[in-house]
Amino acid sequence: MHDAAPESAASGRFSVFDIRDQWYVVAMSSELRSGHILSRTIWNIPLVVFRDSRGEVGVLLDACPHRNVPLRAGRVVGDHLQCSYHGWEFDTRGACQKMPGLMTESKPELRKATVFSAREESGFIWVYMTPGVEPDKACFTFPSFDRRYGVVRRMVEAEGTLHATMENALDVPHTAYLHGGLFRTEKKTNEIEVVVQRRGDSVEAEYLGEPRPTGLVARLLSPSGGVVTHFDRFFLPSIAQVEYRIGEENHIFVTAAATPVSEFRTKLYALVGFRTRFPAWLVRPLIEPFALKIFSQDAKVLKQQSDSIRLLGGEQFVSTEIDILGNHIRRLLREAAEGKTGGESKNFERRLRLRS
Amino acid sequence: MHDAAPESAASGRFSVFDIRDQWYVVAMSSELRSGHILSRTIWNIPLVVFRDSRGEVGVLLDACPHRNVPLRAGRVVGDHLQCSYHGWEFDTRGACQKMPGLMTESKPELRKATVFSAREESGFIWVYMTPGVEPDKACFTFPSFDRRYGVVRRMVEAEGTLHATMENALDVPHTAYLHGGLFRTEKKTNEIEVVVQRRGDSVEAEYLGEPRPTGLVARLLSPSGGVVTHFDRFFLPSIAQVEYRIGEENHIFVTAAATPVSEFRTKLYALVGFRTRFPAWLVRPLIEPFALKIFSQDAKVLKQQSDSIRLLGGEQFVSTEIDILGNHIRRLLREAAEGKTGGESKNFERRLRLRS
Amino acid sequence: MHDAAPESAASGRFSVFDIRDQWYVVAMSSELRSGHILSRTIWNIPLVVFRDSRGEVGVLLDACPHRNVPLRAGRVVGDHLQCSYHGWEFDTRGACQKMPGLMTESKPELRKATVFSAREESGFIWVYMTPGVEPDKACFTFPSFDRRYGVVRRMVEAEGTLHATMENALDVPHTAYLHGGLFRTEKKTNEIEVVVQRRGDSVEAEYLGEPRPTGLVARLLSPSGGVVTHFDRFFLPSIAQVEYRIGEENHIFVTAAATPVSEFRTKLYALVGFRTRFPAWLVRPLIEPFALKIFSQDAKVLKQQSDSIRLLGGEQFVSTEIDILGNHIRRLLREAAEGKTGGESKNFERRLRLRS
Repeated sequence: MHDAAPESAASGRFSVFDIRDQWYVVAMSSELRSGHILSRTIWNIPLVVFRDSRGEVGVLLDACPHRNVPLRAGRVVGDHLQCSYHGWEFDTRGACQKMPGLMTESKPELRKATVFSAREESGFIWVYMTPGVEPDKACFTFPSFDRRYGVVRRMVEAEGTLHATMENALDVPHTAYLHGGLFRTEKKTNEIEVVVQRRGDSVEAEYLGEPRPTGLVARLLSPSGGVVTHFDRFFLPSIAQVEYRIGEENHIFVTAAATPVSEFRTKLYALVGFRTRFPAWLVRPLIEPFALKIFSQDAKVLKQQSDSIRLLGGEQFVSTEIDILGNHIRRLLREAAEGKTGGESKNFERRLRLRS
Repeated sequence: MHDAAPESAASGRFSVFDIRDQWYVVAMSSELRSGHILSRTIWNIPLVVFRDSRGEVGVLLDACPHRNVPLRAGRVVGDHLQCSYHGWEFDTRGACQKMPGLMTESKPELRKATVFSAREESGFIWVYMTPGVEPDKACFTFPSFDRRYGVVRRMVEAEGTLHATMENALDVPHTAYLHGGLFRTEKKTNEIEVVVQRRGDSVEAEYLGEPRPTGLVARLLSPSGGVVTHFDRFFLPSIAQVEYRIGEENHIFVTAAATPVSEFRTKLYALVGFRTRFPAWLVRPLIEPFALKIFSQDAKVLKQQSDSIRLLGGEQFVSTEIDILGNHIRRLLREAAEGKTGGESKNFERRLRLRS
Repeated sequence: MHDAAPESAASGRFSVFDIRDQWYVVAMSSELRSGHILSRTIWNIPLVVFRDSRGEVGVLLDACPHRNVPLRAGRVVGDHLQCSYHGWEFDTRGACQKMPGLMTESKPELRKATVFSAREESGFIWVYMTPGVEPDKACFTFPSFDRRYGVVRRMVEAEGTLHATMENALDVPHTAYLHGGLFRTEKKTNEIEVVVQRRGDSVEAEYLGEPRPTGLVARLLSPSGGVVTHFDRFFLPSIAQVEYRIGEENHIFVTAAATPVSEFRTKLYALVGFRTRFPAWLVRPLIEPFALKIFSQDAKVLKQQSDSIRLLGGEQFVSTEIDILGNHIRRLLREAAEGKTGGESKNFERRLRLRS
């Protein structure tokens, strides 16, 4: 009798998948000027990110190999990061270039800092989370937008697992409840068809027959109606993408690269491209606060979920078929964490219906 | 030599007895109006307590079975508690009555919330801490008082174990020290006889020959003197009772139902009935601040005790015979936690003397 | 690949050596007047230090043997420390001299408080951290100073291990970086010879050929130049000593007795004697803020180092020969923690050079 629900709720299982052999966004380029230092954490690993005087970016374990003092307390001196304690200096490849006071020079390679490969692309700085490795694998390519588009880059942060944050970002049914005050929520009886396709390292949901939103904003954007196109996509290890079109004129394309800070904290580096009948300078001041308000509600529920499953000592989720992408994302993450290549996860296609 | 007192103090033993097959007070009726939600914790289990539109009370594990988001963040919709994330709705028996968006209805019993039996009696809401069970066992009956009595209901909270809180509530010798500023503490040389009787699931101490208090208040209450009657009682799993009479006129009867929030935090739901020569409306404004002041001193010492034994890594108590009820309470709690029925604990009677 | 640097950084090793059969300073005499109580922690053990009406000091485990309530919440009554809960009274030897209310007196030795030997010497109160023992071993003797010296006693505290704090106190190369703003830091090319001598329970570094400091202060102190003498010394279990002379006139002699509060928190009880060409009353107001500023920088880096190695799950230090005393101190501490007597650590002498 003692061992009923609360104990069985303490399943000890958490959808936490620690994937190190991948690229993650560690910062936006705009955050890091030459000669400056950033302190970041990915998968609980403290990192120091610095840009030397030539503009090159280095990512090191944030602990001097000498006495393990954090390097973020130091400063950039020319092309080196100098530790604050004894003045040891490291270059962007982690090599120790100076040990003040020492008159004998023996085995400087023993004093190498732990180094992580870094790339800078499309305004984001990426880091490969296995140290000491120069990977063949490329980092994810963000979409590019022509001049008709407004573009926004943003970092937001939630106290949720990587899995819960990705599921939330690509989940449709919660919008009417969690965001009920922001979206129009009159009871609709539309039936929408969904096509789900999973491939080796990604999964996509296409929504067919989705009605045009009925609010004033939607009518302004697309007065003549027009077909709605809606795709939600997930790419390993941590990319969520939502693409939404109303007619020919309106296109919103959100790509969010998630960075796991720790088991229950995830950052999202988002790139949003949008195109409407109206100029971007007019739409941007409306779209940003709206998006941030939605995200703050999502961050709140993700924190509540995290607190709850930590308190209970594990998850105990039940699902229905309209939890459309969450379980596919969990499967892809689990396989990646277990080192299975994309090919082993068989391709998958399914059609289902939900009421919206 | 290294292993002397501090290490042996780290006994690893704590008087914590986790008893789930019992009723505990989860709230006062007055705290919960129809359509409202309370968040409570008993034995570390997060509970959501709600009252539906018909006035019926439900107690569920505070985690939606779908994605484990706390149900306290939801709202009462008619006779259902609605989760804030996806709008799932549960009745007071935990049945899932609505899953918005889902077009197929398969196995809703898999989506049942974890439910705890609830009762509402004498102005208190009780919960049975084994989930999914409709117990035969009744909850404790608070005493009732006729119209000559003033009645107060109060919840107070201390950072103490259930055992330490019960021992403290029924301990006499500490009053001259911990509450020395509140009670008259001139050195007395009275010898009092105590009769202790333990039964299967309770223990009682009767104090014989206790002198009438000598203060002004006592003289006002009972100008002609009068016999003092004093009983302290404990009932499994968590009821402390103090009954005190001076002469025929004065009667104070305190019943406190303890609710273990966690190992080291205990709530007391107290019902106090009192009758004196003076009308209740006159006495009440005097009695309440006095009782709360006493309790705040008890709560302070219970927290100090808890902090100390956690820091030391375990209790290491020594006792004397005038620790009258504490060790009996520990024995009853231990036996209940081990599932032994009341009958196995042999009845016990003892007489002893203390100086007061 | 997953198991590279961050995991290997999680070495699980910390330079924490728990040495209980030794004397540590628990307070300065000036902190404890007759009839007063201090609350202190050494090696995580909570202690209550009190001075009775005769001036005698007692150090007890800060937990009453009765119900483990901290004795620091009590008060000194004559020659006894009285617990706040039930009024039990203890003398400086831990004996329970009073149990109010109890009419039978059986086995008071069962109710003895856990007692630690205490000594008071040179303005400091020492405690021997194995309880219940009257040790033969004497506590360290602080140097004494004649009337030409100014004397300062100070307690400072850092969030560092005993080892890291001692290493930092006796480390030379960090001064040019961590304290770079306080000392003159133009690039020097002086080569200094160092003689290191380790004995059974101490290690000393003598610096030969150290130039006179070049700042204005140094020129004021020693206008005619003069030979610099500089010794750094460590004595088991926790004494750091720095002795510095410029010419005949200037002598500064710092002795710091370290007290480990917990694994990562260390107090330093320092006695500073100084003698210069100028009177002590003139020098003291200059020397104190300067010394405290230096120590605050050291405390900051020690906390950064502690946070870093706790986050990484262990130390992973690399050293060079100019980490002159740190590794000897670690060896002495490790041997003491393992109970090896001083004789087993073979004497050691070495000469080396560093650039300063």
